[in-house]
Amino acid sequence: MRDWDRRAEWLERAESLKPELEHWAVEPRALVEPEFCEDAWQKCRMRDLAPAAALRERAFGGGDSFTVDFGESVVGRLRLRMRPVGRNDSPLRLRLTAAELPYEASADFSGYHGGLSRAWLQDEVVNFDILPGEFVLPRRYSLRYLKIEILCVAEQVVFDAVEVIAEAAVRDLPEPPAALSPERAAIDRVALRTLRNCMQTVMEDGPKRDRRLWLGDLRLQARANAASFRRFDLIERSLLLLAAASDDDGRVPGCIYTEPELRHGNDTVDYALLFAPTLEDLVRETGDVELGRDLYPLAVRQYELFRPGIDADGLVRYDMEGWAFIDWAAFDRQMPMQGVAIYSLRALARLAERFGYAEEAQLRRAEAERLAQALRRFRYDADRKLILSGPEGEVSWAGQIWPILAGVFTPEEAREILLAVEQVPGAQRPVTPYMHHHLLEAYCFAGLREKAEAWIDSYWGGMVRLGADTFWEVYVPGDDFLSPYGDALINSACHAWSCTPACFLR
Amino acid sequence: MRDWDRRAEWLERAESLKPELEHWAVEPRALVEPEFCEDAWQKCRMRDLAPAAALRERAFGGGDSFTVDFGESVVGRLRLRMRPVGRNDSPLRLRLTAAELPYEASADFSGYHGGLSRAWLQDEVVNFDILPGEFVLPRRYSLRYLKIEILCVAEQVVFDAVEVIAEAAVRDLPEPPAALSPERAAIDRVALRTLRNCMQTVMEDGPKRDRRLWLGDLRLQARANAASFRRFDLIERSLLLLAAASDDDGRVPGCIYTEPELRHGNDTVDYALLFAPTLEDLVRETGDVELGRDLYPLAVRQYELFRPGIDADGLVRYDMEGWAFIDWAAFDRQMPMQGVAIYSLRALARLAERFGYAEEAQLRRAEAERLAQALRRFRYDADRKLILSGPEGEVSWAGQIWPILAGVFTPEEAREILLAVEQVPGAQRPVTPYMHHHLLEAYCFAGLREKAEAWIDSYWGGMVRLGADTFWEVYVPGDDFLSPYGDALINSACHAWSCTPACFLR
Repeated sequence: MRDWDRRAEWLERAESLKPELEHWAVEPRALVEPEFCEDAWQKCRMRDLAPAAALRERAFGGGDSFTVDFGESVVGRLRLRMRPVGRNDSPLRLRLTAAELPYEASADFSGYHGGLSRAWLQDEVVNFDILPGEFVLPRRYSLRYLKIEILCVAEQVVFDAVEVIAEAAVRDLPEPPAALSPERAAIDRVALRTLRNCMQTVMEDGPKRDRRLWLGDLRLQARANAASFRRFDLIERSLLLLAAASDDDGRVPGCIYTEPELRHGNDTVDYALLFAPTLEDLVRETGDVELGRDLYPLAVRQYELFRPGIDADGLVRYDMEGWAFIDWAAFDRQMPMQGVAIYSLRALARLAERFGYAEEAQLRRAEAERLAQALRRFRYDADRKLILSGPEGEVSWAGQIWPILAGVFTPEEAREILLAVEQVPGAQRPVTPYMHHHLLEAYCFAGLREKAEAWIDSYWGGMVRLGADTFWEVYVPGDDFLSPYGDALINSACHAWSCTPACFLR
Repeated sequence: MRDWDRRAEWLERAESLKPELEHWAVEPRALVEPEFCEDAWQKCRMRDLAPAAALRERAFGGGDSFTVDFGESVVGRLRLRMRPVGRNDSPLRLRLTAAELPYEASADFSGYHGGLSRAWLQDEVVNFDILPGEFVLPRRYSLRYLKIEILCVAEQVVFDAVEVIAEAAVRDLPEPPAALSPERAAIDRVALRTLRNCMQTVMEDGPKRDRRLWLGDLRLQARANAASFRRFDLIERSLLLLAAASDDDGRVPGCIYTEPELRHGNDTVDYALLFAPTLEDLVRETGDVELGRDLYPLAVRQYELFRPGIDADGLVRYDMEGWAFIDWAAFDRQMPMQGVAIYSLRALARLAERFGYAEEAQLRRAEAERLAQALRRFRYDADRKLILSGPEGEVSWAGQIWPILAGVFTPEEAREILLAVEQVPGAQRPVTPYMHHHLLEAYCFAGLREKAEAWIDSYWGGMVRLGADTFWEVYVPGDDFLSPYGDALINSACHAWSCTPACFLR
């Protein structure tokens, strides 16, 4: 019996950890309208029109529309309480558009041209036959803004309540550490709201899209969770679900679907290697050695499955198989993956040590050293203080960061490398907050704590200054409409992998 | 205390009679597609593409669409069971269009230009986040056809079930009398299906639109019900609801809304006068004299409220107040209303007699005679055998029919009148089945039973030959797109007032 044949057991254990979600009502803060603004993110910001209380003073006719700002990004279902004014002899027909960002709330979705399904955009056209009435709509939205267009109404309609019944595994955000500046306290709060909104029955990547459990995101969520909510049950459940969804070769998926039942999603070679570090983090936090031992063989298996991608010299092959995510940008994956592999091996070694598997620990440590030495010997340009990736010797930030995180270099060397890469024109910089997180870790390792903090202030703080109250999936300052999917409308504005400033600020 | 101050009591009694609806699943008969056809009603008919079983053999991609024919017009909610084929990483977005008629199923609703709310058209655009799954949609439709457009799908979707969970107070249609020809048996069946689909928690006028309880429709439904389902509880409940919704003057509304709570709808002077005949029919069928006595003062009150509309000669004033429906056409209402008033008085007189109110009976009978004599004296052209209405002495079919039904003329005179009006060019003929019903009654009174039957064969039979499996709200042979509301899309194809051939055929 291979160890990963215990998938049914893992699934059962995961299901026993399924959280009861918290539910709470969120009322609008204000009636708002989007306005074009050169300085605003995506050229659009919300202008207050009236306090929310004004809503129920106003009767809307056919063709009218309004937008409410819930004051906070939340995840949940809409509850509408509506009453007719005047004639009330026919149904009410509404178009509802839920949006995370002002631009999204203002856009005409018919122009959507992205590569991902337009069905992720959060709009419906529905009819309500009997008014007055209170209606809870079935679809779950991730939203801060809700636009309601009154397509048809008998005469007029008043909205006595427009609420989100918010839902998440946790509700209240822990207060920021007292020592933080107001700016950093705001960053911390936005980070934890991002995390909170992704904490559903599993750790989702983004509650608007894709609502999936990604191993790479989970690792970062687990770290932010350890610094805040400390709901390790949800981390354990998520990790067990990933384990339970591994394939017959023992390959842990990069992501899984959990509804209506567990399904294996994409295979992602870097994420699979991060199973071991994620497990290590959990065992360290909870002391649950039994769980650790249980999943350890599966963690080892991820490296075994990756090993054919390493050549005789101990270097990741240029033509390594599989999808190495690393970041949403086109750059060579060799050295980032070299770093991830070593990083994984070191976590395996530490886990083995913790479990008293001395020989196993020695084996993993030796393999990590072999890969680290190969990297230093063949791919490190000691003169330029840069790591070169792929057949062209490409320099990317990710290609420096992962080897640093893998402990291939001393902190002093790491500092030189991180300062050197800044000077390389055209070196691919981090695109997603996921990669930015790893840069922060690298700065910390290199003793560049101030640089890390300045980076948080500049990068995540930049989102806050642009109005974010959850952190975005994609943020490249100045590139407002950048999207990995061909249309910024589909970008997620509340994305798990962006929540990690909380780890550094706490 | 005025008698109609007992509205709360009537409402309570009505609520105690609220029926438990029957529910049953209706599966599609076939996959169909609309095709243009010069001979078809509204130039559109459905062509079979494949038996319904073919549906679950087929996977649909984005941009695909299909239409199913449920084989029978029903009222209910949709249940969809769907499963993904191939990639399943994003929601399914559908446009659902439920239709009673082929033309409606084929039309682009964005071109709708009618006067009634477009929200009555039965379409929604909704998203389903998690597949496979079974979904019951909240809206109640009246439909025979369902068009599903797959707006977005991850890869493909299979519809394992597309059902209507039908609902009505009754389910099975009584078999037609054995003596009927196949053609008339078909008419009977369509009539009873029409009635069945309108028998919900009240007797609705039309389950697509307006879903209201109209007193005029109720009277005809009650007659067809007496000849078939004999669910007098629902008639009593409906009549009590109308009584309970009367205003502080005791005016019974022409129609009421019952959801979410009882509301007075339009005032309709002819319908209000028909409260007494409707009550009389019910008491005659059930023998429930107690109910009759209870509501009798309210029935009298309708005539009292109308009486200011009658002049010193005993004729309905040209400038009588209020909306006299009579039929969906522009013609003078004086003589139709004269007939309705006398008709009402005679019912009151018979009720009073039944209850032993001798003096009251005498009073109503005398008033009926006064109005009848006035009509004969001032408005009957004995040479032309025609009744003249309004200041211009207008001749309309309704202006002949209602005085005949009121018993102002002998059967022989009635025959002369009915034959004479056929020869009057430009005389407004019946438009709706509601008025056609009264023509049938007039023919029967006049001893023209064969003419009545031929009329059923031609008029209602005409709808059946055009594919109707429920009778329509509006039918003027050859005028396919006629609508009282500016767009035939909004016409109801299952309308209570069209169900009465069952009274004549049974």
